[in-house]
Amino acid sequence: MSTSAGTARYLEIAEALRRAILSGELPVGAHLPSESDLATRWSASRGTVRQAVATLAAEGLIGSRQGARRIVLRRERRHSFGELNSFAQWAEGLGHRAASRFLSRARRPATAEEADRLALAPGTEILAVLRLRLLDGEPTMVERTAYADWVAAAVEALPVDCRSVMDSLAEGSGVTAHYGEHLIDALPAGSEDARLLQIRRGSPLLRQRHVSATATGRPIEWSDDRYRAGSVTFSVSNSSVATPLERRVGDQ
Amino acid sequence: MSTSAGTARYLEIAEALRRAILSGELPVGAHLPSESDLATRWSASRGTVRQAVATLAAEGLIGSRQGARRIVLRRERRHSFGELNSFAQWAEGLGHRAASRFLSRARRPATAEEADRLALAPGTEILAVLRLRLLDGEPTMVERTAYADWVAAAVEALPVDCRSVMDSLAEGSGVTAHYGEHLIDALPAGSEDARLLQIRRGSPLLRQRHVSATATGRPIEWSDDRYRAGSVTFSVSNSSVATPLERRVGDQ
Repeated sequence: MSTSAGTARYLEIAEALRRAILSGELPVGAHLPSESDLATRWSASRGTVRQAVATLAAEGLIGSRQGARRIVLRRERRHSFGELNSFAQWAEGLGHRAASRFLSRARRPATAEEADRLALAPGTEILAVLRLRLLDGEPTMVERTAYADWVAAAVEALPVDCRSVMDSLAEGSGVTAHYGEHLIDALPAGSEDARLLQIRRGSPLLRQRHVSATATGRPIEWSDDRYRAGSVTFSVSNSSVATPLERRVGDQ
Repeated sequence: MSTSAGTARYLEIAEALRRAILSGELPVGAHLPSESDLATRWSASRGTVRQAVATLAAEGLIGSRQGARRIVLRRERRHSFGELNSFAQWAEGLGHRAASRFLSRARRPATAEEADRLALAPGTEILAVLRLRLLDGEPTMVERTAYADWVAAAVEALPVDCRSVMDSLAEGSGVTAHYGEHLIDALPAGSEDARLLQIRRGSPLLRQRHVSATATGRPIEWSDDRYRAGSVTFSVSNSSVATPLERRVGDQ
């Protein structure tokens, strides 16, 4: 991201508006001042104000435009994409302890579904990983991930208790996720899930399957994460003009 | 929405781009032509092109801007907000039969959580509804909804097998939802859930709690919907600049 004076300016305006929302000066349901009022007050261009406003909209603090104005939707900032993608970053951001352990890492040909999700030729070798995630010392999630062939070696080289694969890939290889597609459903624990999570077979699990992709849309990983029921909740915002959430029949 | 020539123009451009994506002419991962190229090709203003592009971004077909260009993210259009909010509209759009039955409707003072979610004064009378939803004749979801005082009478007046409360409120009272906040987790079926869904107590359920609000952010309903495991999956897209999805610790 550029650090020119222009960029700093829009971040400064965004931060002032964010503070006004967090303090309750602009309460939920209130209208944001119009772009031209903001531009006058901040002696800034309309373009700069628009960038500041778009930043708050991306954070979910304000709604999409209704006529000329936007309204305040919530006081808390949404977590970042990185916090969603990295279990460790998320847990630590909330003041919880996160720990992880690779239970197995093995190369094998992609299944048809893995090849499809990772946009690889059928049969391409992927790295299949089984990993246990703990929150405050409690077994919380079992992760089964297929890493695309072009990141496999980097993931194999990570220590067995690696804190965050995505953070390590970013630091070590410059590979960062920009897009995610998530499928969320519930299912009963199988015997491996039950053993690892120390629960009974058939207990409810919350499953999040997801693909992470780079800024150019290249898939990095396809993962099946199963959480003990009661350990986490996913929260999603949507609106009539931004519909990131969809319900599908069955488990696909 | 306005139906002026200007509005029609951006919809026309959006539709042409949508067709190019659906047909594979612009495949997943391809760059969209730049705004100025699109403006030239369509003899349209930059503003009109920008509206067309924003429409496709809201549908999840194209990504957020990376430098000057956007990339194609997916071929299928996301379902609309209405399809997510209305079980009936969603099921029928996918070629499934939906049926619903109110099992009870009763006014009572809001609980502390209901008052908070609905932005009502503590103790305000709400309408508490228990409803069973069937998909192709199968009991699929148990819905427990608290309707805000100001829509209670309209919901009480609906027939017991009302197809869609939200569609009926829109038609009858002009009340439409523009924003949603959703909490998704898993839990074991309680005895009422098990009886209504014809499953065993303790079976996994996928729960979606949500608030729907009007365009001005006024909450209409706070609902707790429990789906039989395996019957539906929620799908969410996010990106480093739009983070509608968040993970929370525990079940709140």
